[in-house]
Parts: sequence; C-alpha cells; structure tokens
Amino acid sequence: MSDEFLHQLLQSIAQGQVSVEVGLEKLRTGAREPLAFARLDHQRPERTGFPEVVWGPGKTAQQIALILARLSERNPIAMATRIEPAVFSQIQGRLPEAEYFPVARICAVRNPALEPLLLGGCIGIVSAGTADLPVAEEAAVSAELCGCQTKRLWDVGVSGIHRLLSNRELIETADVLIVVAGMEGALASVVGGLVAAPVIAVPTSVGYGASFNGLAALLTMLNSCATGVGVVNIDNGFGAAMLAAQILRVAKR
Amino acid sequence: MSDEFLHQLLQSIAQGQVSVEVGLEKLRTGAREPLAFARLDHQRPERTGFPEVVWGPGKTAQQIALILARLSERNPIAMATRIEPAVFSQIQGRLPEAEYFPVARICAVRNPALEPLLLGGCIGIVSAGTADLPVAEEAAVSAELCGCQTKRLWDVGVSGIHRLLSNRELIETADVLIVVAGMEGALASVVGGLVAAPVIAVPTSVGYGASFNGLAALLTMLNSCATGVGVVNIDNGFGAAMLAAQILRVAKR
Amino acid sequence: MSDEFLHQLLQSIAQGQVSVEVGLEKLRTGAREPLAFARLDHQRPERTGFPEVVWGPGKTAQQIALILARLSERNPIAMATRIEPAVFSQIQGRLPEAEYFPVARICAVRNPALEPLLLGGCIGIVSAGTADLPVAEEAAVSAELCGCQTKRLWDVGVSGIHRLLSNRELIETADVLIVVAGMEGALASVVGGLVAAPVIAVPTSVGYGASFNGLAALLTMLNSCATGVGVVNIDNGFGAAMLAAQILRVAKR
Amino acid sequence: MSDEFLHQLLQSIAQGQVSVEVGLEKLRTGAREPLAFARLDHQRPERTGFPEVVWGPGKTAQQIALILARLSERNPIAMATRIEPAVFSQIQGRLPEAEYFPVARICAVRNPALEPLLLGGCIGIVSAGTADLPVAEEAAVSAELCGCQTKRLWDVGVSGIHRLLSNRELIETADVLIVVAGMEGALASVVGGLVAAPVIAVPTSVGYGASFNGLAALLTMLNSCATGVGVVNIDNGFGAAMLAAQILRVAKR
Amino acid sequence: MSDEFLHQLLQSIAQGQVSVEVGLEKLRTGAREPLAFARLDHQRPERTGFPEVVWGPGKTAQQIALILARLSERNPIAMATRIEPAVFSQIQGRLPEAEYFPVARICAVRNPALEPLLLGGCIGIVSAGTADLPVAEEAAVSAELCGCQTKRLWDVGVSGIHRLLSNRELIETADVLIVVAGMEGALASVVGGLVAAPVIAVPTSVGYGASFNGLAALLTMLNSCATGVGVVNIDNGFGAAMLAAQILRVAKR
Amino acid sequence: MSDEFLHQLLQSIAQGQVSVEVGLEKLRTGAREPLAFARLDHQRPERTGFPEVVWGPGKTAQQIALILARLSERNPIAMATRIEPAVFSQIQGRLPEAEYFPVARICAVRNPALEPLLLGGCIGIVSAGTADLPVAEEAAVSAELCGCQTKRLWDVGVSGIHRLLSNRELIETADVLIVVAGMEGALASVVGGLVAAPVIAVPTSVGYGASFNGLAALLTMLNSCATGVGVVNIDNGFGAAMLAAQILRVAKR
Amino acid sequence: MSDEFLHQLLQSIAQGQVSVEVGLEKLRTGAREPLAFARLDHQRPERTGFPEVVWGPGKTAQQIALILARLSERNPIAMATRIEPAVFSQIQGRLPEAEYFPVARICAVRNPALEPLLLGGCIGIVSAGTADLPVAEEAAVSAELCGCQTKRLWDVGVSGIHRLLSNRELIETADVLIVVAGMEGALASVVGGLVAAPVIAVPTSVGYGASFNGLAALLTMLNSCATGVGVVNIDNGFGAAMLAAQILRVAKR
Amino acid sequence: MSDEFLHQLLQSIAQGQVSVEVGLEKLRTGAREPLAFARLDHQRPERTGFPEVVWGPGKTAQQIALILARLSERNPIAMATRIEPAVFSQIQGRLPEAEYFPVARICAVRNPALEPLLLGGCIGIVSAGTADLPVAEEAAVSAELCGCQTKRLWDVGVSGIHRLLSNRELIETADVLIVVAGMEGALASVVGGLVAAPVIAVPTSVGYGASFNGLAALLTMLNSCATGVGVVNIDNGFGAAMLAAQILRVAKR
Repeated sequence: MSDEFLHQLLQSIAQGQVSVEVGLEKLRTGAREPLAFARLDHQRPERTGFPEVVWGPGKTAQQIALILARLSERNPIAMATRIEPAVFSQIQGRLPEAEYFPVARICAVRNPALEPLLLGGCIGIVSAGTADLPVAEEAAVSAELCGCQTKRLWDVGVSGIHRLLSNRELIETADVLIVVAGMEGALASVVGGLVAAPVIAVPTSVGYGASFNGLAALLTMLNSCATGVGVVNIDNGFGAAMLAAQILRVAKR
Repeated sequence: MSDEFLHQLLQSIAQGQVSVEVGLEKLRTGAREPLAFARLDHQRPERTGFPEVVWGPGKTAQQIALILARLSERNPIAMATRIEPAVFSQIQGRLPEAEYFPVARICAVRNPALEPLLLGGCIGIVSAGTADLPVAEEAAVSAELCGCQTKRLWDVGVSGIHRLLSNRELIETADVLIVVAGMEGALASVVGGLVAAPVIAVPTSVGYGASFNGLAALLTMLNSCATGVGVVNIDNGFGAAMLAAQILRVAKR
Repeated sequence: MSDEFLHQLLQSIAQGQVSVEVGLEKLRTGAREPLAFARLDHQRPERTGFPEVVWGPGKTAQQIALILARLSERNPIAMATRIEPAVFSQIQGRLPEAEYFPVARICAVRNPALEPLLLGGCIGIVSAGTADLPVAEEAAVSAELCGCQTKRLWDVGVSGIHRLLSNRELIETADVLIVVAGMEGALASVVGGLVAAPVIAVPTSVGYGASFNGLAALLTMLNSCATGVGVVNIDNGFGAAMLAAQILRVAKR
Repeated sequence: MSDEFLHQLLQSIAQGQVSVEVGLEKLRTGAREPLAFARLDHQRPERTGFPEVVWGPGKTAQQIALILARLSERNPIAMATRIEPAVFSQIQGRLPEAEYFPVARICAVRNPALEPLLLGGCIGIVSAGTADLPVAEEAAVSAELCGCQTKRLWDVGVSGIHRLLSNRELIETADVLIVVAGMEGALASVVGGLVAAPVIAVPTSVGYGASFNGLAALLTMLNSCATGVGVVNIDNGFGAAMLAAQILRVAKR
Repeated sequence: MSDEFLHQLLQSIAQGQVSVEVGLEKLRTGAREPLAFARLDHQRPERTGFPEVVWGPGKTAQQIALILARLSERNPIAMATRIEPAVFSQIQGRLPEAEYFPVARICAVRNPALEPLLLGGCIGIVSAGTADLPVAEEAAVSAELCGCQTKRLWDVGVSGIHRLLSNRELIETADVLIVVAGMEGALASVVGGLVAAPVIAVPTSVGYGASFNGLAALLTMLNSCATGVGVVNIDNGFGAAMLAAQILRVAKR
Repeated sequence: MSDEFLHQLLQSIAQGQVSVEVGLEKLRTGAREPLAFARLDHQRPERTGFPEVVWGPGKTAQQIALILARLSERNPIAMATRIEPAVFSQIQGRLPEAEYFPVARICAVRNPALEPLLLGGCIGIVSAGTADLPVAEEAAVSAELCGCQTKRLWDVGVSGIHRLLSNRELIETADVLIVVAGMEGALASVVGGLVAAPVIAVPTSVGYGASFNGLAALLTMLNSCATGVGVVNIDNGFGAAMLAAQILRVAKR
Repeated sequence: MSDEFLHQLLQSIAQGQVSVEVGLEKLRTGAREPLAFARLDHQRPERTGFPEVVWGPGKTAQQIALILARLSERNPIAMATRIEPAVFSQIQGRLPEAEYFPVARICAVRNPALEPLLLGGCIGIVSAGTADLPVAEEAAVSAELCGCQTKRLWDVGVSGIHRLLSNRELIETADVLIVVAGMEGALASVVGGLVAAPVIAVPTSVGYGASFNGLAALLTMLNSCATGVGVVNIDNGFGAAMLAAQILRVAKR
Repeated sequence: MSDEFLHQLLQSIAQGQVSVEVGLEKLRTGAREPLAFARLDHQRPERTGFPEVVWGPGKTAQQIALILARLSERNPIAMATRIEPAVFSQIQGRLPEAEYFPVARICAVRNPALEPLLLGGCIGIVSAGTADLPVAEEAAVSAELCGCQTKRLWDVGVSGIHRLLSNRELIETADVLIVVAGMEGALASVVGGLVAAPVIAVPTSVGYGASFNGLAALLTMLNSCATGVGVVNIDNGFGAAMLAAQILRVAKR
C-alpha cells in the first residue's frame, strides 16, 4: 500500500468523509490501491530483459498513471500502449513528465536517473498502406523506446511491387524485419522471400468486408510460403517490436 | 433412351398401366429416362455462348456417359470435370471416343461433324506451386477445349518473386490472366499489380493448418489491394476458364 | 524528412509557389507531406491502364486532399472512395474543384488540361434492392469516371423474378455485367444463367442476422452454379467497376 | 425386456456361457435389451401426429432392426433414415419384410394390419441439380410413406431459369413446396417469390470449396428475400417432409 | 412516374432552376422519382397472397413514406418493419395516417376503402425471455396486420419448464406455432416435441459471448431433434409471421 | 537416455526380469522407453486427487501399455481413454490383466495390492439419444473406475420431454449431474432448470449438417439460460466424470 | 390485460396500496406490468436452491425495478446483473433500497425480514489481468450475495507464473475455484493442474484481434489438458458463481 | 518440352550420364522432368541463407526424388518434409542415399562433397504432450540438418507445471525456444514469461472437439499475454526451425 493511499485514507477519515468501519475495511482489502488491481512484475527485467508494459484498454487513466509511475521508479523507461488522446490528457494531468506518440498511441515515462536501454543491430519496419501506419508506428516507437535502432519503409504494398524492389537495400541490410500489412497481407511473403533475416509479420485490421477485421491478413501470414516468418496478433505492433528486440538480444549474448 | 426404359414403357402400355397418351408424352419427354435425373439445357449455347458442362461429383459413371453422349450430339465439344481415373474407365467402357486429361481430371467428347469452338486472344495461366497443378491444368484444358489459346507459367510463387518477374513478358502479353495459388494465395495481388489485363484469381485447397482447405487463399484474393481481380470458388479452375473465355468473347463482339 | 523533400520545398518557396507560412507549416508537419505517409505510384497508368485511386478509410481529409491534388496533376481524373459527407466538406475546403457523388460516396477531381479517359462498350449494372444502392452507385460512378458507359437496373431482386425478366434486353445487350446484391445474393446466379457476357458479382453487407455482414451473399456468389461469374470483396463496387473496365479494355486492344 | 432377450439370457445361463452373477446383473440393468439403449416414444403419434422415426447413424443394424420391429407393432409404417445399402442388408436378415429405397437411403416396414396414413393435399418437391437427388428423394419417399401425395421436379437450378419457369404450373398448384438445393442454394428464393404456398428450403452439402459442406446454401436460404420460406438442417430431406406433412394436417383440422 | 414528380419537374424548368436538357434526362431516367430506387411489385398479392412489405434499414424516411403511400393505394394494409421511433416521426410528418407499434418497430398504413385481410385459424406465438419481446411482437403484429388471429405466450424459457407445461393447452390448440428464443434457443425443440402443429422457429440475437449474436440459437434450432420445425433468419419475426400466414392459407384453399 | 533408466534396465536384466534380447532392443530404441516420450506425473494423485490418465490418440499401443504398466505400479487404477478395439488387442498382448469397456472405449488396469478409490455421493448421467451412448458410457465408466457411484438415464432427449419428466426422481436425487447430448444439445438447459445439483454438460459430435461436429451443441450448452451449468469439450465424457468426481470430493473434505 | 391483473389492481387501489394516479398509469401501460412481460418463477428457490436473478440487457430500468421489487418480497436477496450506472440511477429512483456494486455492475435488493442465504466452504476467485476485473467481481459479488465466502486473487496471469505460484496456499485451500481470464485464457489450465478442487473457468472478452471477443480464451479453456475444469459462457462471472455455489451445496447435503 | 531441356537431355545421354532407357522415359514423360512442374530456386541460399526445401504433399515420389537429386547437387543438404513411410520407400528406390527420420517424417540427402551447414547457438525445443512429438521432431530434425544445435524437452504440458519448472535451466540457457503444443496450447505463454530469448510457438492439430484441428492452440498462442512470442502455422515444425535458424544467423552477422 502506497503512502499516498494511506495518507488520503486517514485524511478522509479525519474529515468524516469515510467512516472508521469503512476505513478499516479499506485497510484490510486495499481497494483502489494499485496493488489491489495490478500485481506488478518487478522481476520481469531480469527474467525477460524488458520491463513490464501497460496495455491500456480496460484500465482507467488513473490506474495507468499509477502503474506507470510505479514502473518508472525502477526502470529507465515505462510505457503504455493503446492510449487514446483523451486518455493521455488525463494521464498527463497526473504525470506531467509523460510523453505521447499520437500516431503510435503510446504513452511513455523516462527515468533520467537510470541508464537508457540500448541494443545493437537494426530493425527494418515495412508497411503496406497508409492506413497501416498506426500499427507500424506502434512497432517503431516501441522498439525505439526499448533501445533499438529502426528504419521505416512505408506504403510499399504488393500491388506496386516496384516500390518494394527499389528499396531492397533497406530490407536486405536490416537484422530483423517487421512487416505490417492489412487487407490481404501478402507483403510478408514477398519480403520473406527476399531476405535472410527473420521476419515478424503483423496483420492489421485495415480492410473491409471479407478482411473480417484482419482475419484475412492473419491467415495469409500464417500460410506464408516463405520460410522464416513468425506472426503476432492482429494490430500487435508492440508485440512485434518486443520479439524483434529479443532477437537482437540473442546476438548480444 | 435405354432399351430397358423402352421395354418397360411398352410393357406398361400393353398391360394398360399406362395410357397411350401418357406413353407418347413419356417418349417425347423421356420422363425417368436420363431426363429423369438431369434436365439438359440445350438452349445454353445460344444463351451463354458455351455448352453445358457436366460436374462429375455425385453422379454415376453411367449418368455422366449418358449426358455426355446426349450433349455431344449437338455440340462440337462435351466435357465433364472432376472425373477420377476409375470413373473415366467406366465412362470409356460406354463411350469409347471419350478422351481423358489425367492431371486436369477432365473427360471430353468431340463431335467431329461440328465446327470446333474458336476464340481469338490468349489466356495466360500462372500457378504458384507444384501442388496447384491439378487446378491450373483444369483451367488450361477447359479453356483449350472451348477454343481458347493458353500460355502456362507454373511454379512462380511469391516466395521467390524473381521467378515471376523474369517472366513478365508472358504475363504482360496475355489478354486475360488466370492466377492459381493455394497456401496464402498472394500471387494474385502481385500479378494484378503488374498488368493491365483482367485477372481471375483461383484459390486452391493446397496447404494445411490455418489454410483451412483454401479459405486463407480465398480471403487473400478477395482482399487483394490490386484492382481488376475477380475471384472464383476454391479449386474452381474450370469456372476461371469459362469466365476468361467469356471475357475474350467480349472482344469478339 | 528526406533531403529531396526539403530541397523541393525550399525551391518552391524561392519561386513563390509556396508561401512562407505554408512552408513553415510543411516543415513543422513534415509527417503530413504526402511522400511521408504515401508512396504514389505514378507508373500505374502505364502498367495497369488506370491511375491509382485513394481508399478513404484510415486517412485524414488532409491526407486525401494532398494525394488527390498530386494525382490530378498527372491524370485526367483522380478519385477517392468511401468518403463520408463530413470528410468531403473538409476536402473541399482544401480542394475547391473536388466533386462529390453522395450516394456513391466518391470524391473526384478532374484535370481539364488532360484528355478524359474513354472506353468503348457498355457496362450493365444490376442491383437487387434499394439498400444496395450505395454499392451499386459506387460501381456506376467509378466506371463512368474511368470513361465507361453504363446502364443501371435497380431493385430487381429474385423474389420477384419478373422484374428482371422484363428487362432482359438491357442485360443481354451489355458487354459486361456487374450484379450487386446483399442478403442471399442469388441475383448473380440468375443473371449469370441468362447472359453470355462476363458477370462481376458484388456481395453487399445489406442484411441482418445470418447474413453475417455480407458473408452469406459472398458465399452464394462464390458457389454460383452459373458459369462466367467472378466475385469481388463485400461492398467493393469500385473494384467491380475497375475489373469491368479492364475487361472492356481487352476488346480495345 | 423382450421375451427373446429373457429367453436368450436364461439359455446362456443354462449352458454355462453366462454365470449366475452376471445373469443377475443383466436382469437388473437390462444391458443389450432395446430399452437399454433406446426409450421408445409410443405416445408420439397422438402427440405429434406421426410415429417416431429412426435416425440411422451411430446405431448398429441390430439396434435399428429391433426398434423398427417394435415400432411397426403399433404403427402402420415404421421407417429409418440414412441407411446405407450394407446396413440394410443386415437389417433385412433380421426383418425380411423391410423395404429399401436406395436413392433416398430409407428403410421402411409396413404393418398391413393397420390402416395406412393418408393426408390430403399435395407436396411439390423441387431440386436444383442431379447431385441433390438423394436428399430430394429422402424428402419425397418420407412424405409418401407418411401418406402424402407428391410431385417431383428435378434439376431446375437457377442457372437455367427457363427450366423452372416452364414448370410454373406444377409449383403453383402444390399446397406446400419443398426446395432442395446445394451450391449457392438460390432456388429457394426464386420459388418463394413465385408462389403463395409455404416453402420449406433444404440446403444440401453438394458443392466444394466455399460451399463449406452446405453452409453457403444454408445461409442463402436463411437470408432469402422472398417471404414464406422456412429452412431445415443441411441435407435434412426427412425433416422437410415431416414439416410439409404437418402443414397439410393443419388444413385437415 | 408520379404526378407530383412531374409537376415539380416542370415547375423547376419553368422557373429556370432546371435546364431543359437536364429536364429531358430526368424524364428519361426518372432520377429521384420513387421508381428510380424501388421497383414496386404490384403483382405480388396475386402471386404470393400478401402485399410487398418494406424492410426499413438502409432506406430514408422519405423513401419509406413514398413506398408506403404507393403500396397503400392498392392494398388494404401497407407496412414497414425495423422502423426506429425517430424514423417513424419523420414518416408520420409525411404520412399522418401511419400507425406505429413501438415494441414491434412496425409502421403500418391501412386503406379503409379496401376490405381488410382475413385468415381463419390461429397462430400461437411463444417467446423464451423478456428480451426476446421485440422480435416476438414483430411476429405478432405482422401476423395480425395480415389478418391472422394470434395468441401470445411470453417468457416461458426452458430453464423453468413448468411455465411452458402449465400452458400446454394454448400451444396444443394453435394451428401454427411461432417460437421465439435467443441465448441457447432450446425452446423450439421442446415445443416441437409437444405439438402436432408446424413450428416456425425464430432465433434471436439476445445473449452475449458465445451466443455470437444469435448464431447459437440459430444452430440449435436447425439441429432440433423434434420434427416439424422450420427456421427463419435471426430476429426475423416478420418472416415467421408471413410463413405462418401462408400455412394458414393452405387450409383455406 | 538417463542414468536412472540405464541403471534400472541393467538391474532388471541382472534379475532376469528382462531378457538380454529385450534389453538390447531397449538400449537401441531408447526412444521407446516411457521416460523418453512421456514424463509421468507421479505427484498428481497428491496434487489433484486422481492419478494421471492416458489419452490414447496419437500414441502407439506399445506406448500406452508401457505407461499403464508404470502407472498401475503406484495407483489402484490406471486407465486409458479413446482406445479402439484393435488397439486394445495389442495392449492386451503386452498387458494381459488389462480390462476393456467397448462402448466407453476405455482400457483399465487395476492394482489389487492397493486400496481401490472410493467416493461418497452419486453421479446421475443423462443422455439424449442412442448415438450419444459412447460418450455417456465414457463418463459413466470413468466415474466408476474412480470410485464413484453412478445412475444412468439414457435416451431422454427433449423432443419427448415426458421421458425426462417421468424420471425426475433419478435426476433430483443425484448429487451431481452429467448431461450428454448432441444435435441441438438442449437437454442440459432443461435438466439445469429442474435440479439444485451442479450440472456438467457434455456436447457430443452426434448430428450432421449444421451441427458442425458438435459446435451447435457446444454453443447451446454455453448459452444455457439455466444456472449452475459447466461445460466440457465436445465428446469429453472422461473430463465430465473427473469434474464430477472432484465435486464429490469437495463434499468429502 | 388479464382479469386477474385488473382485479388485483382495483383491489390494491381500494385498499390504498396503489394511488389513483399510479393505477391509471398501470391501466394505460398494462404492457409494463410484470406479468405482461415476465413470468416470475417463484418455485425456483425450492427447485434449484437460489432465487431467479434478473439479466439486465434488453430490459428497461422500470421493468428491472418492478421485477426486483416483486422478487425481494419472497427472497432474502434479489439481484440484477449487467446494470450500467445510468440504469442503476433510474432503478434507484424507484427502489431507493437498491444497492449497487459498480465494478461488478450488479444491483441488489436485500429483504431484511428474511434470513440471509448462507453456505459453508470457500470459493477462490483468481483473475489473470486488470481488465478482467469486472467479470471477476461479478463472480465474487454474486457469490457473496448468495451467502458464499470468497477469496480474491487478482492479476496473476501466466506470463509471470511466479505471481500465481507464490499464492499457492490460497488456491489450494479453496473448496471451489473460479478462474477468470481473457486473451489466451491459459490460467485455467495451470490452476487446474495445481489443485484437487473443481475449477470453473470463465473466459472474458478482454483482448483484441485474434481473441475474437473471447473466443480464443473460450477455446483454450474447453481444450484444457488439466482435468476437473468446467467452462461457462464468455464474461459469465455470475454463472460461474452460481455453479460454484451449487457445488458447495453438494457438500451441505 | 523446352529446347533447353531437350538439349541438356541429349547431351547427358551423349556423355553417358543418362542411359538410353532413362532418356527414352524422360522424353515420354517430359511432364515429369523437374523443369516442367517445378521451377527450382537455386539463388535461394544466397538470398535467404538456406536451400529450398520440398514440401511433400501433392507431389509424387518420383517428383520429390527428382527435385531432391537436383537440389543436392548444389547444396550440402537437401530435404523434404511430410513424407509418409510408403512414399519414402519409393523415393529410396530412386535415391538410395536418401535418409529418413520416421517420427519427423523428413527425408534428407546429404552431399558429402560440400561443407555442411553450421550455426552457433542452441535451440531449445519444448513440447507439451506425447502426441505432439511428430511436430516437435520435425522442428528438431530440420534445425539439426540446417546445422543448428538443439536441446529437446518433451511432455512438459502446463497441467503439471512442475515438470517445466524443474527444467528451467534448459529453457533459460537456450538462445531461441521453439514451443510445440496442441489442445489449448498454453505452454507458449508460460515459457514466454520465463525467458528472455525469443519464443517461436507452434500450435499442433492434436486434440479433438473444440480444438478444431489446432485452431484453439493457434488462437491461444496469437493472444499470448507474454511478449516475445511469434507464431507459425499449425503443425509447422519445419517453419519454426527455419525461423529459429534465421534468428541464430542474426547473431552470427
């Protein structure tokens, strides 16, 4: 239980806003205190190499701000994904040092007292269409916040294959590739056939009708006839970045 | 009309079970005769440009042979699709002039007394992998039997995109393209982006796991980001050929 | 921001084509410069016969206006699909010459300095119900903007088959047919059985319950027992028009 | 417990093949006696108008023969559906009076001592293709065995709509219609729009690829834009016949 | 083309708001006249026994009002389904004689100059839960407007089977039954096993999670182990009423 | 190969329990020694109350026999599920003391040196149709082998609800109920509404067409409007028995 | 309106229990009287051990308040689930004694004149993530209102398995466990393998993309390789609580 | 037959590399010459680091043998996956040097004249159950043939989590992990939460009922709450090995 919580609680009792009985129950059950709704995993950095990251949906701005504050005490970077602008405004009200990446919908808090994360190698991030940008940026910003270098290559969908082929150098020099595509998601197979680096495919929910909210792109990528392609969940740019970072860490070992 | 049918009919008339009027009508309309299980559509050539074609599954070899014989009386070519070798052997026992295309699984009967079908233009048929051959050949043979010229380009799946790009001339000179692909089916989008001709995409059931018997390739093709792509049913090489032929007929008009 | 972009921008300012204020904004919002989020495919007209078309969803009005402006510099017609009225108002604020087709939800910009597109032949567009109109109009307007002639036949669903049969002349004289239908989508099969022209079937998401947002109509059309039917994505009126136009171009060659 | 069962059991005990203990347990639990695996519903005729019918799959020939024998004691007709020829041979070995309808795959036993079922009115049964015959015949034979008159109209699928329209009299004079169709199943909507009689739609599993074993036809029929169409399970010809018979019974009341 | 339309058009031309050329085109194509978006099926009453009914979604209030007005000229009752209260208000502004049934979401216009529809027999309508009421009422009101007598039995879901069993008389005396149920939809099977009358099962989208918007109830009803059950689309109370009415008409013939 | 394995093997040879030839084979095929392909969980009885049970599919008869032999050394009962008769014959060749329950497809080995499992209370097992028997028997036999008392009530599907209602005493006196049903699976809701005991619902794959191999029954049971119903996997009679036994153990504590 | 209803209403007015104004409104809105839209199941407590509970969606606040009032007359606790805050405000306006549990979205009315429900034993409720809290709280509050003791263990998802393992005592001492998890739902299998108590698994709709609104978690739980796991509908915390309570009642018998 | 093919063939005969008999057969069966049905991708090793691998299904033994022979001429290892024993026997008849891995169903041909592939680092392969072995072995053998070191950990499914936890050292020391699991596939999330290395998750089709042939495990893995998990197609052990090898190559660069 945080000091702030205890302080607030006792003050409320002192001012008669909370009865002694209710106060006792609150002390026992810790309701509303962060530990009541979230069990922070402070061992994660040692275990998996990166700090815990907050997934925004289904949490209140207050909960997110509390968790970020707590995480940033011990980690050089604390971040939350899927944060809508309105939610960020509320978070910022409580955590003025929070940064926001609007296209990527990521909110981050840096702890300047700790050494920033840094990983060698470079992640190439390739996206098929303009509408895939939020997911591609979620991948790019997540990777950068975790200390990775990135190269972006946007809007090179397979309906105009020359756009991709004229940028072969970029994709051939990356150590890991993240390919972000909605609709039919064919870009992952084409990229997978051109490079020796591992490819992380991110289907997006961009499309309509028989795209079934990303199912079409997901199935395409899972059935890729190219080898060396691993797939993450629909729209999961963050997950792709984490997998890419872990791959770069293999090289570091 | 089979002998057995005529014999039974006349006996029924002789025994008064069937009146002369009904008997006449039965002779005219052949009720319970082949027409009992199939209602041939002899007007189809005038209406749609091509004779009726027999879809084999769910029909006995005897039924198929009877329908082919009847159709070939009035059409330069009569054909049946999805004919397994064992079924063809039985058909051939009744229709010695029947031809068989084993990879395409097509059985055909030509009527030399009638002028063969002939259409100008050329259909390019492109397939992604070796396992897609039966469907691709079904398309090619169907088209050829209907009087079209074809060019085949096999095994140019997108995991090695240079195999397709080094054959650009073939696909750029075709008037219509049929693209046959299983697994992730991405080939249709890539071809669609390279050519000005209409593209008919045929998903195949080749694959496993999350290909869900061709569903993945089907969704890929329906969501193609390239324009000018029409899709037919999974494994429907024949249907693709018919659509291609009808497109060539537009030019002829 | 690429050097090329900066170079061009400063040159434009130097030559008075871009004001200092606009230049400042461009520098600040670099990410909003078309080249940053979209890689225009100016070779597409030579390659595929028609200019690139903007798919509206997931793009801002500003992005759409910028791309349309850029495309219309080199093409007689630039168009964007799936544009809601409110988005069009914003586009119009930046591109006063933009036209809007409200039922079809299409926004177009014509370049009067270039020769308009023109294709011979005629596309018949047939729709099943009143609620299918937006998709049917998307097909019709797209085709007309690309230089095709069209004939519309609305509200002839199969539950009153005489409405279709009494308009047989229209469908029999079209060179290509687009059939737009939601709910059970049976119209495509019936039309396909009546004509020799190629049929492009467009399932719509019109319906409820077991229509599963157009899945029922899509499956119906893919399983059509009529030959010569190609299917495009649910609600993809634009794609049907492009395929029809490419079919008419075959005849022109 | 049947006499036969008791007789066999006691004989087995007498001959030492079954111990007294096991015999006791068998008497207590009745294992292998029909009532052990099936609870006959002899009240059903009074309650629902028709006797119980045996669904063959998952039952042994012995079980089916025993149930049919038991049912035919009290009902003019006892029937079992989905009986393969090999299973019928085994049934016939035990029940020589059993009849078999091979296309319909129905096995029936008539009790000549009881008055046959008889219902006024006429059921029109319409099927789309030759491969739909087994289901259509299951409907026709079931209806006839339950005392209904039927008219069959086979192979009138919508790809050649004139075949249906030239038989309008048949479908307009039926009191109830059963429409059997696989692939896209569009026939039900067209028939439903032509008649005032109730239409029972039976999707069949005929088709391939995106027919998904009858799902396409099922969805088509559920989304029919024609009114007055009720749908039964895929391939459920028997169920359609029972519903049609119950509709004719309404008229009789 | 309505007089009102012609009058308005000519006036616009006279006042210079519409040019002669545009006026001519409008006369030729009838754009914006009701017949432009809807092709009324005035033969339907003779053909199918009931007038055409307007399905509201995807149509504007103006379109609905125009079609209702037109239909009510020739039919004793004209009705539109799936009309939200706000849409009805707009319809009423144009058609003051329109009635509204808020739970059933039906809007109707009666023509007092014509003899009302009337059918003998009685439809029993049974629903499982309170949340199924809108669909059940859509069935009941539709049936009543078409001249049928109805008996309602609400909230008798199978989790408390005694509620249904204590109302057996109602369901046993109805000539046709409509069973409306969401969630697991088991009520149709239970009712089907209790009565000799035909049962029309209406799955509803009531439920959550694995009800998948009515799919669970739909599958339940299609797989009913009771005979004599026909199924309509999810939430299709109107369709069930029309099928019930057509069944009652069989008796009338 | 682990040291422990080698040690045990050699000791067995030394003690004559294993012949030299068998020993040689074991050394060569090490992969066939249980520890190579299966990691037995001997702590499971203490942890979860019941010994590990072998799921047959995907294992060879030899593997199953080896695991059963090993498990029965330490447990009063060792059992394997989903054992086809031919597989049992092979098992019996190696493990003569193995018993077989053919309808339940269970193979069991009892260790007479250990005290049998015994649990108070009674499990009522109710099934809907004759074809559901294998799953229902799998549940019953599994429960009995684990020391539970059972009462069977077969063939009481909801299409004849009186069959269930006339056996209310049986279901009302059971401490836990297992309800096994295929097709529409409605029996679970009806039973759930009649009793205060927990109900474990087992959907079966019995059915055809829109049963989609048990999906329909599964969804029905998950959406049950009755409370107190937990669902296990399709055809998982064994799992239902284990859950029932664990429920009875709660009472024992 | 039934006679019984009118009789009761007038009598209530005569006795001053209902004011004239309220009486008038009741006559006008008859359809809103509980008996008109809901058939309360007052026998349920005797039959199934717990009173009927109101499922909020699809009911108006007025309906819910009326049913709760009626239920609380005869039961120590009446409750409604899935009540949004705005709906609760309206309920409270009519039922000032109603309580609200905002996270659990439950509204309850206690009848102090009746003895509260009380059950021995303890339910352990375990949830995977913070976003699963509403469902987990629905389970916890429902159980507590029905007289059960609960222990909560929040945010112990399997991605940090030590969080669960360090709380083994809690889960090992519970008599029944409820496991609430979204996304991949793996927690149920892990818990199921650790304990001897029955496990009730509740998949939640928490997740995105390929979670398909809880389908992924649902399938995971149904396929659990641990034994003793029963599954309820997605997000059905209430149902899990009821099943747990019925399991505890087994022990009580 | 291409000129190039004929030229090469005759030259080979002239040089004695091909006998006259074989030459004749090649001329007759031209269609069976590799170039006719397969377009080998000899540039692949340079482009992607590993030679092309043959996917067996849908190819004849003769085709596979021909492709392997051709590939092994230029690569140290040529391999084919999904080879059933009977197919291998036929391959071996033509390619006596072919090796077979029966559990993994892999056929390989080594070219001793070329330097074997070799990669540093170690791949840990973890499988959940005995029935998952074929897929796990496919991954292990593929990786080993490509020069990787592997560690196997079999049968550590999450229902007995201690089996995994007592082998933590193995999984913590691997550079990349492949996790193979069917049924609910939860193992990937648990492993993902324990390690810093990238995890490649392979769902298998092991299971029944609601596993839907591996769909359940696939969805589980895509929704993993652990970070750093990439998923490949159902049963795609080979693809997982290739991705793992490409990850190890990143470290090598």
